[in-house]
Amino acid sequence: MTDARSPLALPFPVMPPIAGVTLRTVRAGYKDWGRCDLTYVELAAGTSVAGVFTRNLCCSSEVELGRANVAQGLARALVVNAGNSNAFTGYRGRAAVEAIMDQVAAHLDAPREQVFVSSTGVIGVPLPIDKARAGIAAAFTAPPATWEEAARTIGTTDTFAKGASATAVVGDTTVTLAAIIKGSGMIAPDMATMLGYVFTDADVAPAFLQRSLAAANARTFSCITVDSDTSTSDTVLAFATGQAGNARIVDEHSPGADAFAAALHAVCRDLAQAVVRDGEGAQKFLTIAVSGAVSDDSARRIGLAIANSPLVKTAIAGEDANWGRVVMAVGKAGEPADRDRLSIGFGGVWAARDGQPLADYDEAPVAAHLAGRDIAIAVDIGLGNGRATVWTCDLTHGYIAINADYRS
Amino acid sequence: MTDARSPLALPFPVMPPIAGVTLRTVRAGYKDWGRCDLTYVELAAGTSVAGVFTRNLCCSSEVELGRANVAQGLARALVVNAGNSNAFTGYRGRAAVEAIMDQVAAHLDAPREQVFVSSTGVIGVPLPIDKARAGIAAAFTAPPATWEEAARTIGTTDTFAKGASATAVVGDTTVTLAAIIKGSGMIAPDMATMLGYVFTDADVAPAFLQRSLAAANARTFSCITVDSDTSTSDTVLAFATGQAGNARIVDEHSPGADAFAAALHAVCRDLAQAVVRDGEGAQKFLTIAVSGAVSDDSARRIGLAIANSPLVKTAIAGEDANWGRVVMAVGKAGEPADRDRLSIGFGGVWAARDGQPLADYDEAPVAAHLAGRDIAIAVDIGLGNGRATVWTCDLTHGYIAINADYRS
Repeated sequence: MTDARSPLALPFPVMPPIAGVTLRTVRAGYKDWGRCDLTYVELAAGTSVAGVFTRNLCCSSEVELGRANVAQGLARALVVNAGNSNAFTGYRGRAAVEAIMDQVAAHLDAPREQVFVSSTGVIGVPLPIDKARAGIAAAFTAPPATWEEAARTIGTTDTFAKGASATAVVGDTTVTLAAIIKGSGMIAPDMATMLGYVFTDADVAPAFLQRSLAAANARTFSCITVDSDTSTSDTVLAFATGQAGNARIVDEHSPGADAFAAALHAVCRDLAQAVVRDGEGAQKFLTIAVSGAVSDDSARRIGLAIANSPLVKTAIAGEDANWGRVVMAVGKAGEPADRDRLSIGFGGVWAARDGQPLADYDEAPVAAHLAGRDIAIAVDIGLGNGRATVWTCDLTHGYIAINADYRS
Repeated sequence: MTDARSPLALPFPVMPPIAGVTLRTVRAGYKDWGRCDLTYVELAAGTSVAGVFTRNLCCSSEVELGRANVAQGLARALVVNAGNSNAFTGYRGRAAVEAIMDQVAAHLDAPREQVFVSSTGVIGVPLPIDKARAGIAAAFTAPPATWEEAARTIGTTDTFAKGASATAVVGDTTVTLAAIIKGSGMIAPDMATMLGYVFTDADVAPAFLQRSLAAANARTFSCITVDSDTSTSDTVLAFATGQAGNARIVDEHSPGADAFAAALHAVCRDLAQAVVRDGEGAQKFLTIAVSGAVSDDSARRIGLAIANSPLVKTAIAGEDANWGRVVMAVGKAGEPADRDRLSIGFGGVWAARDGQPLADYDEAPVAAHLAGRDIAIAVDIGLGNGRATVWTCDLTHGYIAINADYRS
């Protein structure tokens, strides 16, 4: 956690405990700092697990092993290391992850495939296994931590702790979800990494949990971008302890399946937006709503092309309703679009319609909107019914300062 | 042309005249400025033409009409308007281009399809046709201009005039190529546009000229990026007047075909690099050489992923040999890559090899290299024989200042 809090930061929400989930935080000392940097989460026997991982082909050993372990569907523990990402460290990095898995599995008398590990921080330096071992041993007997303490402990250059919770009625049982995430600050010479964890007391079969998480991911984490760069460690895991006592959700037809999926989607959306609000140098939070594309997927790609455009992001930083740059970004997305059917608006006011500036365009309300923190861009492609919403932040001097000036 | 000259600027080269090409520049007054802003180039009857255009789907009317006109293979004139891009102006924009084509065609008694028009500058405002007409009428009788005058006149926010020339021996005849380009400065509320024009006295059949230009484009203009954003107006045209008297180059088997193609490639490479050297806020020129990819095309995509990564570009701005960010960019390219076979170097010194930092890595020469203006990044993927070189610039506070701060 760094000192300069994002101007877009949100307060940490009040979050309920989740039966079957115990959080503990300790200081392993991965860096020379006083803060806790190792989070250990113990999960009740029989906890279902699901996961989505970075598509970066140069992923970390944690991601490789996590992806493999999710397949067997059960989890007993999660370890998150902050301060060292263990990425790009070859066989030594993999050995460190396996040692952690073995240590926790022996302690819990559980299969090692049920132990999940994430690491975030400096790259190219193998995780110091002695520090990890000692930290984990201390964590086994550490007192329980709060959600906010855990959220702070998984963070690296985050400027605020991020969490979200929700409930859903499954049959006649109310189930609860609580989730934390870190990202997307940046510090030399680290890579920004997004690590998110959702915990619920619901009883959910692993296969349905995986499908629900993948569906939520497609409309939340896959719809955010800060700078178009994809970490080698990005991970979101969902754990369902089953302690709420609901009739198990096995598939889409189970009672309460829709309600559970909606709650999971809601916490993923809240976490995803919180990450954008902590984007490096972010001064404004952008919601880009694309409609009229040939499909939802096409709309999402167009939205991301706009959200990743440095020219659009700098225009918003400059509080400039530069719809021409939005047109450019739509056109470069490679998705079906027709210049003469495009409409573009800011804050509910259309600036251009059917490919031309509006004759009666009133810039005053748009200028007032752009002077705020939360900016809405609407783009109608005019071709079909495809829709998507993506979220990003502006591109500012702060981004350059964080990522280029740190050697000075 | 703006005042603050890029620190990477090159002097304008000495450029030879091209028989059959007459340049004229006048002030049409597209903006309230004293400079010339309309370039009129008259070409000898029978001049072959080829062109490559933006892939942006929201392209300008100039691009739509130019793409159609290239198909018939002949050109008599080129008009370039600076100060108004005529983009996103609907049917009125198209009418303005057609009016220019008609006016020039009538003057030359030539088919209007042989008149090519480009425009660059403000978007969303139809080109003022009265100013265009008067400017073109004046151009018909204006005195000939130099290459440098023409290069300045097609420019908008360029900080230096850009040209290149080459010769080739075709049979027993020496043919000459001369070329100018504008890009990629930016000024509110314009879009950066790259407009390039190659002129040669060689006699070249349109079909071979098109193939040669497309091949050169693939390894030059398609291998540069400033900020990943693609203008709606980007255009490169090649004109061959045939006045040199060489035996016509009709295909790859014609005498001198290879020499001509090599010379065309050379001028396109010089122009492409000059555009990068004028990138907004550029302080360093980056050459990214990718080897060991599964194909040349895969290598190019990996190179562009690195070149477009804000994290890589800011690291170079900060003179930081951050190979971890290069790994990240390789992984996100979506091309075959194996983390544990990757090697990354700066200025001829390997920093990481086979997926791990080098134990004996000497940072001193790398730090000295990164303190300079011309930066070389080498990436070996370790999988095959595919190679590509891409060029870009760093991402600096200057970019943000140019693109976000202009309203202040």
